[in-house]
Amino acid sequence: MKYIKDKVENINIAYIGGGSMEWSWKIMSDLALEESLSGTIKLFDINYEAAYANEIIGNKLLKRNEVKGKWKYKAVKILKEAILNADIVFISILPGTFQEMKSDVHLPEKYGIYQSVGDSVGPGGIVRALRAIPMFIEFAKAIKEYCPEAWIINYTNPMSVLVRTLYKVFPEIKAFGCCHEVFKTQKLLAMMLKEMRGINGISREEIKVNILGINHFTWINRASYKGINLIPLYLEFVDKYYEDGYEQSEKGYWMNDYFSSAELVKFDLFRRFELIAAAGDRHLAEFVPGTWYLKDPETVKRWKFSLTPVDWRIEHKKELKEKSRRLVNGEEEFELKPSGEENVKQIKALLGLGDLITNVNIPNIGQINNLPNKVIVETNAVFRRDRIEPVIAGKLPEELLNLVITHVLNQETLLKAVLTKDKGLAFRVFLNDLQIMRLDISDARDLFIKMLENVKEYLIFKKLKL
Amino acid sequence: MKYIKDKVENINIAYIGGGSMEWSWKIMSDLALEESLSGTIKLFDINYEAAYANEIIGNKLLKRNEVKGKWKYKAVKILKEAILNADIVFISILPGTFQEMKSDVHLPEKYGIYQSVGDSVGPGGIVRALRAIPMFIEFAKAIKEYCPEAWIINYTNPMSVLVRTLYKVFPEIKAFGCCHEVFKTQKLLAMMLKEMRGINGISREEIKVNILGINHFTWINRASYKGINLIPLYLEFVDKYYEDGYEQSEKGYWMNDYFSSAELVKFDLFRRFELIAAAGDRHLAEFVPGTWYLKDPETVKRWKFSLTPVDWRIEHKKELKEKSRRLVNGEEEFELKPSGEENVKQIKALLGLGDLITNVNIPNIGQINNLPNKVIVETNAVFRRDRIEPVIAGKLPEELLNLVITHVLNQETLLKAVLTKDKGLAFRVFLNDLQIMRLDISDARDLFIKMLENVKEYLIFKKLKL
Amino acid sequence: MKYIKDKVENINIAYIGGGSMEWSWKIMSDLALEESLSGTIKLFDINYEAAYANEIIGNKLLKRNEVKGKWKYKAVKILKEAILNADIVFISILPGTFQEMKSDVHLPEKYGIYQSVGDSVGPGGIVRALRAIPMFIEFAKAIKEYCPEAWIINYTNPMSVLVRTLYKVFPEIKAFGCCHEVFKTQKLLAMMLKEMRGINGISREEIKVNILGINHFTWINRASYKGINLIPLYLEFVDKYYEDGYEQSEKGYWMNDYFSSAELVKFDLFRRFELIAAAGDRHLAEFVPGTWYLKDPETVKRWKFSLTPVDWRIEHKKELKEKSRRLVNGEEEFELKPSGEENVKQIKALLGLGDLITNVNIPNIGQINNLPNKVIVETNAVFRRDRIEPVIAGKLPEELLNLVITHVLNQETLLKAVLTKDKGLAFRVFLNDLQIMRLDISDARDLFIKMLENVKEYLIFKKLKL
Amino acid sequence: MKYIKDKVENINIAYIGGGSMEWSWKIMSDLALEESLSGTIKLFDINYEAAYANEIIGNKLLKRNEVKGKWKYKAVKILKEAILNADIVFISILPGTFQEMKSDVHLPEKYGIYQSVGDSVGPGGIVRALRAIPMFIEFAKAIKEYCPEAWIINYTNPMSVLVRTLYKVFPEIKAFGCCHEVFKTQKLLAMMLKEMRGINGISREEIKVNILGINHFTWINRASYKGINLIPLYLEFVDKYYEDGYEQSEKGYWMNDYFSSAELVKFDLFRRFELIAAAGDRHLAEFVPGTWYLKDPETVKRWKFSLTPVDWRIEHKKELKEKSRRLVNGEEEFELKPSGEENVKQIKALLGLGDLITNVNIPNIGQINNLPNKVIVETNAVFRRDRIEPVIAGKLPEELLNLVITHVLNQETLLKAVLTKDKGLAFRVFLNDLQIMRLDISDARDLFIKMLENVKEYLIFKKLKL
Repeated sequence: MKYIKDKVENINIAYIGGGSMEWSWKIMSDLALEESLSGTIKLFDINYEAAYANEIIGNKLLKRNEVKGKWKYKAVKILKEAILNADIVFISILPGTFQEMKSDVHLPEKYGIYQSVGDSVGPGGIVRALRAIPMFIEFAKAIKEYCPEAWIINYTNPMSVLVRTLYKVFPEIKAFGCCHEVFKTQKLLAMMLKEMRGINGISREEIKVNILGINHFTWINRASYKGINLIPLYLEFVDKYYEDGYEQSEKGYWMNDYFSSAELVKFDLFRRFELIAAAGDRHLAEFVPGTWYLKDPETVKRWKFSLTPVDWRIEHKKELKEKSRRLVNGEEEFELKPSGEENVKQIKALLGLGDLITNVNIPNIGQINNLPNKVIVETNAVFRRDRIEPVIAGKLPEELLNLVITHVLNQETLLKAVLTKDKGLAFRVFLNDLQIMRLDISDARDLFIKMLENVKEYLIFKKLKL
Repeated sequence: MKYIKDKVENINIAYIGGGSMEWSWKIMSDLALEESLSGTIKLFDINYEAAYANEIIGNKLLKRNEVKGKWKYKAVKILKEAILNADIVFISILPGTFQEMKSDVHLPEKYGIYQSVGDSVGPGGIVRALRAIPMFIEFAKAIKEYCPEAWIINYTNPMSVLVRTLYKVFPEIKAFGCCHEVFKTQKLLAMMLKEMRGINGISREEIKVNILGINHFTWINRASYKGINLIPLYLEFVDKYYEDGYEQSEKGYWMNDYFSSAELVKFDLFRRFELIAAAGDRHLAEFVPGTWYLKDPETVKRWKFSLTPVDWRIEHKKELKEKSRRLVNGEEEFELKPSGEENVKQIKALLGLGDLITNVNIPNIGQINNLPNKVIVETNAVFRRDRIEPVIAGKLPEELLNLVITHVLNQETLLKAVLTKDKGLAFRVFLNDLQIMRLDISDARDLFIKMLENVKEYLIFKKLKL
Repeated sequence: MKYIKDKVENINIAYIGGGSMEWSWKIMSDLALEESLSGTIKLFDINYEAAYANEIIGNKLLKRNEVKGKWKYKAVKILKEAILNADIVFISILPGTFQEMKSDVHLPEKYGIYQSVGDSVGPGGIVRALRAIPMFIEFAKAIKEYCPEAWIINYTNPMSVLVRTLYKVFPEIKAFGCCHEVFKTQKLLAMMLKEMRGINGISREEIKVNILGINHFTWINRASYKGINLIPLYLEFVDKYYEDGYEQSEKGYWMNDYFSSAELVKFDLFRRFELIAAAGDRHLAEFVPGTWYLKDPETVKRWKFSLTPVDWRIEHKKELKEKSRRLVNGEEEFELKPSGEENVKQIKALLGLGDLITNVNIPNIGQINNLPNKVIVETNAVFRRDRIEPVIAGKLPEELLNLVITHVLNQETLLKAVLTKDKGLAFRVFLNDLQIMRLDISDARDLFIKMLENVKEYLIFKKLKL
Repeated sequence: MKYIKDKVENINIAYIGGGSMEWSWKIMSDLALEESLSGTIKLFDINYEAAYANEIIGNKLLKRNEVKGKWKYKAVKILKEAILNADIVFISILPGTFQEMKSDVHLPEKYGIYQSVGDSVGPGGIVRALRAIPMFIEFAKAIKEYCPEAWIINYTNPMSVLVRTLYKVFPEIKAFGCCHEVFKTQKLLAMMLKEMRGINGISREEIKVNILGINHFTWINRASYKGINLIPLYLEFVDKYYEDGYEQSEKGYWMNDYFSSAELVKFDLFRRFELIAAAGDRHLAEFVPGTWYLKDPETVKRWKFSLTPVDWRIEHKKELKEKSRRLVNGEEEFELKPSGEENVKQIKALLGLGDLITNVNIPNIGQINNLPNKVIVETNAVFRRDRIEPVIAGKLPEELLNLVITHVLNQETLLKAVLTKDKGLAFRVFLNDLQIMRLDISDARDLFIKMLENVKEYLIFKKLKL
């Protein structure tokens, strides 16, 4: 890297999963719009062709006048080549394919367990972790060897346990996990201010929140806009919309969109715990006992959110591939627009170009007083030159801690299970999951065995007897 | 109190629940057999007649030659009279009557929740706590005023949350909870040594165990007899009896006794967690997800333990009353025999007559490293003159901690709910219970409301809306 | 308070010590230059006349055109009147008079103990605390009663133990301590960049530092300017100036100024501990063993800093009084200029008008991992609407912790000594102080008794025997 | 090892420092008197001849009728041979010779620092540690390789930092440090009961004490004999003997014995801290500021204890050598008598032959709540089969903690200094020592350099510049 006045040049970025089509395009766009950074991005993907397509798409930007940030893209075939001497490493992969994800999400339905996403906790999240952890063990080892000083930014789910894996293998790593669910909650609060107080044009950054929890199950216990305390206002807001839900676009929209909701889960959780849940309803529902919001498809419908079918993802990927083809051969021009993500802001702050306070997933060193140290928690932190300094977020109230810690301890145990290759231990985690707890042991064992069978090529267990 | 050589005279004991028929008789017997202690026991009970009967029974002992410990019994009508200047206070009460216990235990069966005991956790344990905590708040206040230096020995369930209540109200109190479940496990290990190694005549005290957990859900991670490590031996033992169970008396006995079991729950938990569960199967089953061993009566039968019907307790109490009558009018002579309980040994140690290492329920000050401070835990401790010094028991393994901490946090929240008279908070605890978690929220609410209705005269909630 | 767009009106500020002449004028000036805030300031001082002079001086500003922030000043005669319903309370007092300070600072010289300031630790700091703690106990009680929701900003020394006193008496208080010593160190680092790298015009805010320690003995373990790590640069800087010292104004200036230094203590401490001490040399020298830099006046001279005589303060106060007279009667016009202090920025942030990251003295809740909870530490924190959220600063290295914790534990014990009115306990603190440790016990007792005699009217000890 | 009924045979003990003459003879005697243990003892010493003499002396016991415990002694020439497959390892060495100890103890006298023992803290203790830590690093590595399951019993000083070294290098080691200073304090309390209450014949084991602190600077905050609280009695005792001291043998005896004292330091510390210091006055004096009791030889005399000259030790060793010669060649018969040490009791308990509660030096895992984890503390613990379970001792009062933690942090830093071979860091420890703190830095540096020069062959520092 080279500092020239307020600009930094020759930055080396490695992108693991660099053939991805949504996340990588967002980053390309944000980098292109930022004038203070430039350098090279090495794209690594097990699907080399996809990475190569992104190389072409990315390099086309270099020639466009409106592009302020100049980046050279290069697809590479081996991991080492991507990360050697990298300053920054993005990790954004799919652990396995959508075939495995189909098993994660839909096989449990035969046992009465419905999952809205299936990538964080629950049977889907657990088995996804069992596949992904071995990959992250390898990433951590390679980072330790080839770029120990680099900043590692992970977008892959299950977020918490994967960032934890990086630190477990290489404790000095400088890694963090990024997620935009909190931003959406800030936007909801901005909408609320418009709705309830008639204040327009508030950006999400103006909504100040204190964040505490774990990724996809994180909470806001203080929120304000300028001098206004938003917690009592949210109480009014919930009372107003508790029956029918609040929909940001037109009414009924959530029925047509596998990613939308009417925020009813969030509202119900507020009544239950008096804190604002800061993630989408589809995620939240998976972190509480399965009988609450995910009992069966009717219950899901009543709470006005969706079970996202993996087939939809498969279809959607086809469309993206088609778009990629058009971008590569010039049929379509790459659209430059801010993604709303914070990656570029975070990188700038880590390079010393201004402080940033934002939420982030990093090891607990006391930012949440009543969760164990070292586990990955989501709170605010100050990003500064070469350092993320967590802000102390406080304590979770005990009745909520009870749910959060279940997942935290499960993730710790899951990682231990993979590291010691102890399948039995992984099964104990499975049994302790809040979605699975309502199965009896023999059904749970059955399901576990079948799910593992479907993804066995990704697993590294030694002890096979359950 | 007065020390004369190795004897202590003029000890003042207060017995809250002094009309009880089983516990009080055990204590009478043990005190009568111990020559180094003597004094007065004030019996207080809301049923004064029962206390008065015990006064008569107790004072008859004074005249018997074989009685070495001389104690004067006196039934009193108000609490203050019992505890004023007491050196020791026993608390052994039934919170409410068996009518309320019937609601605790059997009403949830209509919602598919079966309880083997119903006095610790689960719907029964929670509602029992809601009745008992207000009583213990009053006890603690009275102790603070009338005998702040006394040692308080509690036998009442739910043990953990009630001892916690005493400390919350009066933090300087010297209170602890006693339970014999661990002793039974030591006896089982002694039986195992006979069974597997042919060693006869081992007393339970010779079985050295490290205890860690909470009452009725406590665990042994180290056990030895002289130079023998009992953990690997227990593994063999479990393998041998895992299919049919181990029955100390004749086979099938468990079917005829509401308190027996074939230890199968204990054996299964050992396979699952690699620690020895140190309580009866009936208790253990209630602390794990309800689907495991208490799914329905058939499941209970398969695991060879029993659901104790409250009607049995009602019948049994009649028999005891009859016996009491006979003891009072001299038709039957009170039988002196060691109860196997440790109360008298504990009292001797606290008076300075020799050290005692035993398990006890007291606030955590670090004896279990990964549970919060102040909650009531069960571990070993050294009893010495006017002091109980906990032995550091270590950490619970994370996959087991996950279950234990659920109850710990629920108990903390339950106490907060009663202290703040917040019924909604109590309901959140209810929802987080591992037996209730498989109900959906509306069924759970229904059950909660009905159970509370049945015991409403004992409750002190202010906020009535749920 | 009333929010009108981005402005806040009708703010009630109470100023305890409102007759002060330097601090109060700085605040008047800063508030006058800030357009977003306005309201009323109640000036309370045991010297009512001085407060009344400031009322006149302050109200003159209202009429000046260039004044953007409009504030009404009002001297009041009783504390309650000042703080009733205050939004913000400043505390900036002299505990006693300069006569007592003379005893604090100069009496120990007869026993060979020289103090450069004498207001934080050492015999002077300890006895000053013994006088000031009773006053702060009264302030805390009054705040609890009359303005429990107010933010309390303390400038009075000894800072740490006085802020601790406020929290001890009223744990829910929202109080913090402010000090500009860190700012001076940031300025030194900016000068260093000019000196060593030729970079001009850097503001202290651009120097990013991680702060950890206690007030007047706080440390920087990370410092940067944009992409530059300042720690290795500081090493070069120290090497260059270690012999002769670094003087920002002309050479030898420190000899003519009781507040200047050549930074030699700071440089020597860097060689010793590898961290940048972030306070003036006069303060730092008092926190380490007395033999190091304060052995005798010659040693002080060799390290190129000064022992500030209290007589100078007395003289200086006379000049200020004269200036006050001129400002009141219009002979001189009050000069408006930014003070360089952060009070107004902090207030704005606490009112919701933008985040501020700065250093602050507040109770430890984990921001310094290896100091006890609750003691007052100095680290960075995020100021937000109605909240100060500490940033986790990390751990002090053990060899440095050793010195810091001595003062921390002494302050805790000192507060306990005053609260329990236990003079003997205060004497134990005295003996444990790093300046006093080289006296033998009888000399130390002698000194302690004489110092206390000189300030006895301010003390509240009951147990008089030592 | 082999268990036959209540006996254990074929125990392998390794004795590092097996040529020692006092400690080894005590152990020989105690083992000979104990019937339940037998086996082999390998004696390793850098002075092979001394070990060989002990082999002869030890094996002579085998033939004596009154010897109940049968042990075979064998001197070996290399460490590995001694410890390979050992069940128990004693470490009792002199780190260097008395020549080095002479430098440790007497060189600082030229700088005005007088040491009564010079083996724990102070300049002597620090430099002794610098020699001994490298040896213990080697021991720990060898134990890890050759007998990782063995119990390691250390008697070598400086106790705390050397046991800490073992755990740092091999965290799974089962090591503890033994010291009889607490026993002496128990005996003093038994004498006190005779003196003040006329109770005769109390054994030290009947004096129940709670121990908290670090070796040679440990404290008793609770003490009892049967029902008697000894703390108020000790207050009377101190008042009675504060002026002239209490001497167990004839008056003035302390003047003729380099190891005796009149307990005046202990009494003075009780007045200061209200806890009973549980070590000899000669040790205690070295842990507090040097000006208190060790200012100069006159002060020492006034407090009625002694500075033990190393020349005395040299002389005494000659006598022991002579005695050894006589024992070897049969001129004198080895006398069997209980040593009063607890080694054999501890071993029996660790082998499962009965519980033992006693004081021991092991890593802090919470037994002292306000000292850091992992540092070596001295508290009570329960010895059981293959396990030492610490009893929670509580917190040190803050004013005392202040002194204790200084040594604790110094020891942590000292170990780090040796492990990183950083001489500068060792010097920082030196400067922070409470004896040395009254020197100015240049004198301290001078002394440090000279002391190190005298022992340089034992040091492993890399960074030589100070």
